[in-house]
Amino acid sequence: MPVNYATPAADQLFPVAGVRLGVAEAEIRKKNRRDLTLVALDAGCTVAGVFTQNRFCAAPVQLCRQHLGAGQEIRALIVNTGIANAGTGEPGRQAAQASCEAVGALFGVAPGQVLPFSTGVILEALPVDRLKAGLPAAEADLKADNWHAAAHAIMTTDTVAKAASRHLVINGKTINITGISKGAGMIKPNMATMLGFLATDAGIAQPLLDALVKEAADASFNCITVDGDTSTNDSFVLIASGQSGASFAAASDAGWAEVKAAIIAVAAELAQAIVRDGEGATKFITIAVEGGKNIEECRQVGYAIGHSPLVKTAFFASDPNLGRILAAVGYAGISDLDVDAVQVWLASGKDSVLVAENGGRAAAYREEDGARVMAQAEITVRVNLGRGPAAARVYTCDFSYDYVKINADYRS
Amino acid sequence: MPVNYATPAADQLFPVAGVRLGVAEAEIRKKNRRDLTLVALDAGCTVAGVFTQNRFCAAPVQLCRQHLGAGQEIRALIVNTGIANAGTGEPGRQAAQASCEAVGALFGVAPGQVLPFSTGVILEALPVDRLKAGLPAAEADLKADNWHAAAHAIMTTDTVAKAASRHLVINGKTINITGISKGAGMIKPNMATMLGFLATDAGIAQPLLDALVKEAADASFNCITVDGDTSTNDSFVLIASGQSGASFAAASDAGWAEVKAAIIAVAAELAQAIVRDGEGATKFITIAVEGGKNIEECRQVGYAIGHSPLVKTAFFASDPNLGRILAAVGYAGISDLDVDAVQVWLASGKDSVLVAENGGRAAAYREEDGARVMAQAEITVRVNLGRGPAAARVYTCDFSYDYVKINADYRS
Repeated sequence: MPVNYATPAADQLFPVAGVRLGVAEAEIRKKNRRDLTLVALDAGCTVAGVFTQNRFCAAPVQLCRQHLGAGQEIRALIVNTGIANAGTGEPGRQAAQASCEAVGALFGVAPGQVLPFSTGVILEALPVDRLKAGLPAAEADLKADNWHAAAHAIMTTDTVAKAASRHLVINGKTINITGISKGAGMIKPNMATMLGFLATDAGIAQPLLDALVKEAADASFNCITVDGDTSTNDSFVLIASGQSGASFAAASDAGWAEVKAAIIAVAAELAQAIVRDGEGATKFITIAVEGGKNIEECRQVGYAIGHSPLVKTAFFASDPNLGRILAAVGYAGISDLDVDAVQVWLASGKDSVLVAENGGRAAAYREEDGARVMAQAEITVRVNLGRGPAAARVYTCDFSYDYVKINADYRS
Repeated sequence: MPVNYATPAADQLFPVAGVRLGVAEAEIRKKNRRDLTLVALDAGCTVAGVFTQNRFCAAPVQLCRQHLGAGQEIRALIVNTGIANAGTGEPGRQAAQASCEAVGALFGVAPGQVLPFSTGVILEALPVDRLKAGLPAAEADLKADNWHAAAHAIMTTDTVAKAASRHLVINGKTINITGISKGAGMIKPNMATMLGFLATDAGIAQPLLDALVKEAADASFNCITVDGDTSTNDSFVLIASGQSGASFAAASDAGWAEVKAAIIAVAAELAQAIVRDGEGATKFITIAVEGGKNIEECRQVGYAIGHSPLVKTAFFASDPNLGRILAAVGYAGISDLDVDAVQVWLASGKDSVLVAENGGRAAAYREEDGARVMAQAEITVRVNLGRGPAAARVYTCDFSYDYVKINADYRS
């Protein structure tokens, strides 16, 4: 059960003109589940992506980088679940290439105009023949109002499909922004273990889109963690079709700030949905670190807290074992940190409790106040490092029996 | 239940002349458990220590550094469990100081000749009065053949007491080496969350001992991990009484190599015992990384694997989900790693299975071979990075339901 998250209804996900989606059951790994998603893009779209930093990056990630780098217009995306096609060496690259060739043939475009994505078990071969065999059904299903089905078809251990959508009116034109994502384990930046696809019918020039995809990832998928594991397949792709009639070529264009903010907001919603549905999650934790010398050290502290199994099990137990948080602040790697200047609060909504200052427990702190906050499903750990103006946020979940259960049973 | 570890019997722990230990029930946090250990050192001992790198280091750690740095002869150690006296600010420092004063008064030495150690819950005040009240009983219990009792009295969430002992004959003199340690969560270098005390009746000149304590820590407590959390209180102390009659002043002295190797072996045994008794551990995992450009990158890869909750839950499940290991190798931070050159084996005893090479699954690998190794309680993950001559080892355990249970229930 995700923490305070439900999949939007199909009619809450606005179609994006120029982008059609189709799903199919291709039996990539198991029968009777939608595991293949085809996305067809009209001519004229711009596309940008960011991908995992893992050196064992999957074959499809290698091809995505290559195809985006070559500058041919991207006309289709093909996504399979079940098999990650990672750790599969040269045969894996050939399988990803064969997938692109098959999709290219379907649409009469070059293989280099197709971006492939895979998620699932690592080190096993992608059954390309079954993927190919599923393509006609996926093609037959292509339609613009199919985001809801696609959100379901890209799930792996996710318990709910993840989607978000907004529209806004800029210069008299209605702009739609819709995206889907999947998690739910092996979540850590750069990037989270995840796939994220976000499309808008705004027109966005390639340089602007290239900058935006990085900025949006840093504000969304790159500040979440479930278990500290950076996956082999993480991919986040932004598509701009231009069919709304509103187009943006420079950061100074009227309305761009609003469009950019809306796209980042949808990305953040998709990323946080992954944490809310983190494997075994019972709580959604925001770690807000402020007072740092720079953003990097704030993120370091946020991740030290967000990765600590001791902190995460304490959240699961609703136990205000705040010493574990202080310990994580202390080992985050800021070698000249003055611990006497550090302040820590636990908060939920407007209920904010100062728990530590002057190198130890706050004088007014009472354990029942900490326990009251820890019992909530949405908790903010606020840390002031007391050494500068920078701030950063990290989003994570607690660590429960079910995390172990899910990951011990995943393949069985 | 620890993995293939049992506490040695009391008569297997050789007394170290010049070092006496006494334990007591001081009700530091709970009644009816031995929670206070006093160690009395004869005049003429040399003492050296290494301590946690956590910036929120506990008050006793601050005093240990100060007292060892001041160069006065150390004559006593005082260790309490139950309360870590960490995150306790200035009152915590005063409490640690008061403990040293009380022990100093007992032995007629200066407070600066006493090293204090605490382990247990963070952020709570040390009840100094109860500690002081327990000292007479601990003093009355002082004896050289009391290592077994001391090993029990320093336990927190440990399920078994940890001790190791050896003797060897050098230049006609029998040298005894005996140590104790405690874990069992918040285990990561620098240092593991742990206390380790090791004494020998060899005489070791201070500069030699200072170098040895670092080398021994790097080969033992600094290459283990249970959960990646670096504690506030980690301390490892080496004591050399000289009462065997064999003394060493320089690394070139005859017999020093053997003595040094034996001391490091005892330290390694104590450190590995902590992992074998890691919270919820059902398996003992050795991660042997070779073929690196330098030791540091080998350790990086070892820790990436050893910290991955996904890898650790797969070990718990006896699931040869090797992709998770490859993923961890890939995100360990070696940016120019050629994954096609990486080889990975799973081994238990003489049963060694090549599972990955050429960027993917090894051609001859069969899943039943991986499953057979994964079913064992002692497993080695061997990784050859294929880029140099360096090697390093990291020791860890699996991640089970019981880890969550123990850490969710610890304070209750």
